[in-house]
Amino acid sequence: MTLLDRLRDLLGPAHVLTGDDTAGYRDDWTGHYHWTPLAVLRPGSTEEVSAVLRLASETGTPVVPVGGNTGLNGGAAAEGALMLSLARMNRLREVNPAARTITAEAGVILETLHDEAARHGLVFPLTFGAKGSAMVGGFLSTNAGGSNVLRYGNARALCLGIEVVLADGRVMNLLTGLHKDNSGYDLRDLMIGAEGTLGVITAAVLKLAPAPVAHATALLGMDTLAGALALLHRLQAGSGGAVEAFEFMPAHYMERLGRLKPELACPFEPCAVNVMVEIATTIAGEDPVERLETLLEAALEDGSLTEAVVATSEAQRRRLWTMRESAAEITFVQPVMVDTDVALPLDRLQEFLTRMEERLATLDPEAEVFLVAHLGDGNIHYSVYPGRDEASHLAAIRAAIAGEAVALGGSFSAEHGVGLSKRATLAAHKDPVALSVMAAIKAALDPKGILNPGKMLP
Amino acid sequence: MTLLDRLRDLLGPAHVLTGDDTAGYRDDWTGHYHWTPLAVLRPGSTEEVSAVLRLASETGTPVVPVGGNTGLNGGAAAEGALMLSLARMNRLREVNPAARTITAEAGVILETLHDEAARHGLVFPLTFGAKGSAMVGGFLSTNAGGSNVLRYGNARALCLGIEVVLADGRVMNLLTGLHKDNSGYDLRDLMIGAEGTLGVITAAVLKLAPAPVAHATALLGMDTLAGALALLHRLQAGSGGAVEAFEFMPAHYMERLGRLKPELACPFEPCAVNVMVEIATTIAGEDPVERLETLLEAALEDGSLTEAVVATSEAQRRRLWTMRESAAEITFVQPVMVDTDVALPLDRLQEFLTRMEERLATLDPEAEVFLVAHLGDGNIHYSVYPGRDEASHLAAIRAAIAGEAVALGGSFSAEHGVGLSKRATLAAHKDPVALSVMAAIKAALDPKGILNPGKMLP
Repeated sequence: MTLLDRLRDLLGPAHVLTGDDTAGYRDDWTGHYHWTPLAVLRPGSTEEVSAVLRLASETGTPVVPVGGNTGLNGGAAAEGALMLSLARMNRLREVNPAARTITAEAGVILETLHDEAARHGLVFPLTFGAKGSAMVGGFLSTNAGGSNVLRYGNARALCLGIEVVLADGRVMNLLTGLHKDNSGYDLRDLMIGAEGTLGVITAAVLKLAPAPVAHATALLGMDTLAGALALLHRLQAGSGGAVEAFEFMPAHYMERLGRLKPELACPFEPCAVNVMVEIATTIAGEDPVERLETLLEAALEDGSLTEAVVATSEAQRRRLWTMRESAAEITFVQPVMVDTDVALPLDRLQEFLTRMEERLATLDPEAEVFLVAHLGDGNIHYSVYPGRDEASHLAAIRAAIAGEAVALGGSFSAEHGVGLSKRATLAAHKDPVALSVMAAIKAALDPKGILNPGKMLP
Repeated sequence: MTLLDRLRDLLGPAHVLTGDDTAGYRDDWTGHYHWTPLAVLRPGSTEEVSAVLRLASETGTPVVPVGGNTGLNGGAAAEGALMLSLARMNRLREVNPAARTITAEAGVILETLHDEAARHGLVFPLTFGAKGSAMVGGFLSTNAGGSNVLRYGNARALCLGIEVVLADGRVMNLLTGLHKDNSGYDLRDLMIGAEGTLGVITAAVLKLAPAPVAHATALLGMDTLAGALALLHRLQAGSGGAVEAFEFMPAHYMERLGRLKPELACPFEPCAVNVMVEIATTIAGEDPVERLETLLEAALEDGSLTEAVVATSEAQRRRLWTMRESAAEITFVQPVMVDTDVALPLDRLQEFLTRMEERLATLDPEAEVFLVAHLGDGNIHYSVYPGRDEASHLAAIRAAIAGEAVALGGSFSAEHGVGLSKRATLAAHKDPVALSVMAAIKAALDPKGILNPGKMLP
């Protein structure tokens, strides 16, 4: 019996797709990656995932897990591999408002978690553009970030427990909803962010938080990033840690936004540093707009702030968010040759930008930079439209960005992960001892190298 | 040249203690563990730690790292081993108020971090009884908890980066201060809580938070734990997540406290569930007492709360804290034969207590239970004074406690770790697949098994 026959026996023929039936599983969202899987498998339970992995392990067949396929680094590319879609595992195993947890299978869509939490007056705070497609297994395997990380942390911080199927098919049950658990090595956090190279996450216990009852949102203008960071600290202390977003859009962002979408033009003459800030409160009866206005007035008076426009209606609030959320659209109006996702220590963003300006002046004087940043997390999406597009030139620019970020104590991958596209960068810029520890762990947990081969590890 | 001679060459003779000079390093704080180390080494730098481990690895000599030696599970017991004291590595490498980070070496004492943060109007929130002795390397290696976990998380949540010396002496540099970093496996969190069995943490980047400017503290009485949990959620939402402590003291706790320390007697007739709550604000001019009183009045009116006494002075606040902080003292007035540190999902504490009552009724009808809990974290310090003290009987009680906790989705070790004392419990109650993954990782990173041998892993 062939491998595919055995898989059909295991999952039922309807859940083993081959040939033309795999049409929806051969490309990724970015359009950069295309592949032909050996087959697409659609298991419906942890037991089936386990049986598939036993078989794959026995036969040395590569397995690439995939959720919503919304990753940006080719992490789900599955050339010649069994593509393991978790989409059918979409059950909410438990919703527990008293314990503030949801236990969800890997194929549950992020937006479903939002909706379910909302039904109980709660919120699952993780959110980003692909929320309508991204799934639990994917956002955990990539440790996704997004625009609420400042207040609630990334995917890792919102996950209390996981169930994982290992390369050999064994099921590791770490599915607890505990806030304190020092019973052995932190295998949960090792699996989260491992991009499916150490195991397949099949379910997770996720943390819920009380839902905000009111928001205050503003667009601010000031001169320097140092000033913006100082203001962030004032707003954090002055709001009791209620800052949910602090998003940096430089003057060149505002200029292009106003040109391409006049209805979203900056309401004041753009400053060097423009920031969209939002605070939220869970306190019934509290007016966060009044609180924010008081804080901003003080900053305007002492000169640490040049401009401030506070949204006074939900429509105005949506408009400010749309200004920020148009980032991808206005970035990609011209082909971006180099788009990155770097993180810096909070106080070193300006230094990074200055150094990159110097590097680009030498490397490519015609290059144009376009950027937007989750400033509160030190996370810059730094894109370059280069003066010329030879692969080696693009690689040199990429290397310069990664190198400058790492030299300043930063990271070449803040929230998008490594996948295929940043493997070479990882090899060049990660601490070599850490790389060798990663390789040792991979060899220990997946000795045949069947789990998402060719990803993350150099 | 003997090993000790080579170590003397390396560190200087003053920093290689043997014989009587090791007197201060042969016992642990609990009085349960005693050992005779081969020598005590006091390296002064990461390079020296690295050289020691190279030598230990070469010669297959066990190495037990120790910080303030305040652990509760014998994790620093070092019979026949090189005891590696990190105490001389007590430098603050960087204090960066703008980035809200402190980079501290492993030998820095927790209280020093508190003092340094306070100088900048900030706080390093981790705190517990041993703060005057516990050191960075120790509180990270045990992933310490304490009484602020509810708001700020445990040691792991407060650490952004680490420097680790591996078993073979290589230095792994993960010393970044980033809020987002998806550049490879989460080796930081793997090392944190590994109790020195995978590497020796030599330095860390720690997170600082804005210092509260005012507190409101109260003692509450109510009928059920379910009611207490519902109230916690109301207080969290109603204070914007400002609850710093929510500590459960049952009626038997209050009764004993009042008997042994009349000056700390409960200000009302103790209820089944008594809770010390504290909220704190970082907002200048805000009155958290008024906020707390408003929230408590509503709860008193709708009957979800029976008693409430709010501290109206710092002296009264201190008194409420002392009631809670007397736990160890009033627990140990009679020899405790079984003291534990279990965690439960937030909504299952009562079920655990009820089940244990039933178990003890059979196992040991004369047994007396004494407990106190970090209720907001689901963490119970559950002690039993048994009717008889044969080792096998005590082991049966311990097994019952661990078993019931795990059966309810809990953990037999919430914040104290495993060390020596909970190895057997780990072997019996941890998911067997997780145990085998732990063993595989240990073998991959410390193939000669020289790092803290006999600890944590079964």
